[in-house]
Amino acid sequence: MPLDTDQRPVILTGDRTTGPLHLGHYAGSLRNRVALQHSHRQYLLLADTQALTDNAADPAKVRRNVLEVALDYLAVGIDPAKTTICLQSGLPALAELTLLYLNFVTVSRLERNPTIKEEIQARGFGRDIPAGFLCYPAAQAADITGFKATVVPVGEDQAPLIEQTNEIVRRLNRQIGRAVLPEARALIPSVGRLPGVDGKGKMSKSQGNAIPLSATPDDIRDAVRRMYTDPNHLRAGEPGTVEGNVVFTYLDAFDEDRAAVEALKAHYRRGGLGDAAVKRRLEDILQALLAPIRERRAALAQDPGYVLDIVRSGTRAARERTQATLDEVRSGLGLLAFERIEDRACALRDSTAA
Amino acid sequence: MPLDTDQRPVILTGDRTTGPLHLGHYAGSLRNRVALQHSHRQYLLLADTQALTDNAADPAKVRRNVLEVALDYLAVGIDPAKTTICLQSGLPALAELTLLYLNFVTVSRLERNPTIKEEIQARGFGRDIPAGFLCYPAAQAADITGFKATVVPVGEDQAPLIEQTNEIVRRLNRQIGRAVLPEARALIPSVGRLPGVDGKGKMSKSQGNAIPLSATPDDIRDAVRRMYTDPNHLRAGEPGTVEGNVVFTYLDAFDEDRAAVEALKAHYRRGGLGDAAVKRRLEDILQALLAPIRERRAALAQDPGYVLDIVRSGTRAARERTQATLDEVRSGLGLLAFERIEDRACALRDSTAA
Repeated sequence: MPLDTDQRPVILTGDRTTGPLHLGHYAGSLRNRVALQHSHRQYLLLADTQALTDNAADPAKVRRNVLEVALDYLAVGIDPAKTTICLQSGLPALAELTLLYLNFVTVSRLERNPTIKEEIQARGFGRDIPAGFLCYPAAQAADITGFKATVVPVGEDQAPLIEQTNEIVRRLNRQIGRAVLPEARALIPSVGRLPGVDGKGKMSKSQGNAIPLSATPDDIRDAVRRMYTDPNHLRAGEPGTVEGNVVFTYLDAFDEDRAAVEALKAHYRRGGLGDAAVKRRLEDILQALLAPIRERRAALAQDPGYVLDIVRSGTRAARERTQATLDEVRSGLGLLAFERIEDRACALRDSTAA
Repeated sequence: MPLDTDQRPVILTGDRTTGPLHLGHYAGSLRNRVALQHSHRQYLLLADTQALTDNAADPAKVRRNVLEVALDYLAVGIDPAKTTICLQSGLPALAELTLLYLNFVTVSRLERNPTIKEEIQARGFGRDIPAGFLCYPAAQAADITGFKATVVPVGEDQAPLIEQTNEIVRRLNRQIGRAVLPEARALIPSVGRLPGVDGKGKMSKSQGNAIPLSATPDDIRDAVRRMYTDPNHLRAGEPGTVEGNVVFTYLDAFDEDRAAVEALKAHYRRGGLGDAAVKRRLEDILQALLAPIRERRAALAQDPGYVLDIVRSGTRAARERTQATLDEVRSGLGLLAFERIEDRACALRDSTAA
């Protein structure tokens, strides 16, 4: 569908290409994207450029995982006919918008960004923060506005980045004198981040507490077996606690039979329901959920050329979209656009004569 | 000449497009460039992107002066057959290299850069420095390395920026494992910056003490008349001081008859030579110097389309050059290059199988 006749809201989302995706990504974003691709114009960004802002020492990892994340997208049901999957580093207009936006935001504003502050701390950068990392809110504003996205699914902790984007949007629109760029709103998922199987913080590959989307049946069985429950629930006959019990958190996330889950919770609380029984139920659900994903993923992985073709053709389409935005912003600001130097000779003549 | 057979050293230089150039630019850089274009592969960058880092509120000025500066280049004798004149914002590879390099330099290193420190102070930015301004040393490193320049003519105060560039070059080459990028050396002109006609600091349009390259004969006469000399040299018969006397500084810069200038200085020092006589000599020299420049400039200004054609075709050539560097750097780092996704399917298959 041509850009101008497609009236669906535009979503931009994506993932840093630092590792294959896992069940936490599935619960928190991937399955929403599969649903949203029907009602929205959806762009999925393989964010290799952003991944470099804190992985400059290991670019090969960033490259390798472009294919891994693309495989994950296709395996969970992202349909390239409905969703545009594109490679961030293949979109030079985003780099150009980023540099432009950096002129419209101060260093102190970037430093005050709560997301940046927390992530600097989490990554232990201290004073030696890479400049690219400090600047990434401007890069994110470029990503969002480059696609003219109005809906950006993010975790609650990322909401300040959307606010930062909208500040830049307002500043540019004010200077241009009309709303060239739309403001975006954060779409915060109703469920929080999935905890890791050890119950220690969110699921994360680096914490070794993740179930990857390519997990084998044995991997899944082992992960469920060692899953954190209620450490004080030593006998099946005794009452147990559901809150913070990872098995129940996962049932909440993946068991479609809500009534059955509530009944299990009540049973567990009053005693008489052992961990093993609850884990069996969860294992069945996860095996059923992951089996088709794993199989599709394995089949696609046999043909990386096909997967990269999808990424390439998505990137081409995204190039047009983002280049059009860049041209519009540059022209709105009264800057010269190289592609149009010829057309503007007359306009220049006028302005220099004045 | 194709890139690989041209063994001449590569020079990158250029100007921020914030205003037409003046006699200070001519003395400090333009006339050197006219000479260097014979022995060097010279690229002149119309630095509109960089100009925005502290002119975001007035992009129209930045746009308008693209043509003005290009006119100045051609008027002084830059030959587009020998020198590539190109528009910075027409070179997306430079934006991409900039973002990449920002990952290889820390915020504290940028803040310690003496040039940045001084310019922050001079522009009165304080804590509200635009992020783009703080990052401009990385952009400059992208400019220099994008063209693989080894010689960069800069004022003495800009030498730390070349050192910063070479730090990034060394860091990248170390990571890539071979010298993909050359180090650059600063070419610092033997003559210092030309003072303004009022003797207060360097010549600068914003200080109102500049003689533009398009100055009319009357402008030149007036400028020389009000030129700062020795305020204590009230009568021609008395001894006068040559040091800090702008008329003599300009004679040093523009009078090719060195012996005559030395004789004039001696005469002035011992007394008996009036300011009016020295100014007449300087005025004759400046009129002779600027008349052909002014005439060529006026003729070219009649045909902005022709001038922009030169810029456009130079930008096209520069696009190839800078894109080749970006590809080489990305591939050296092991990153995926969009243009080559297809070629790399096999390489990816190998690396993911490992």
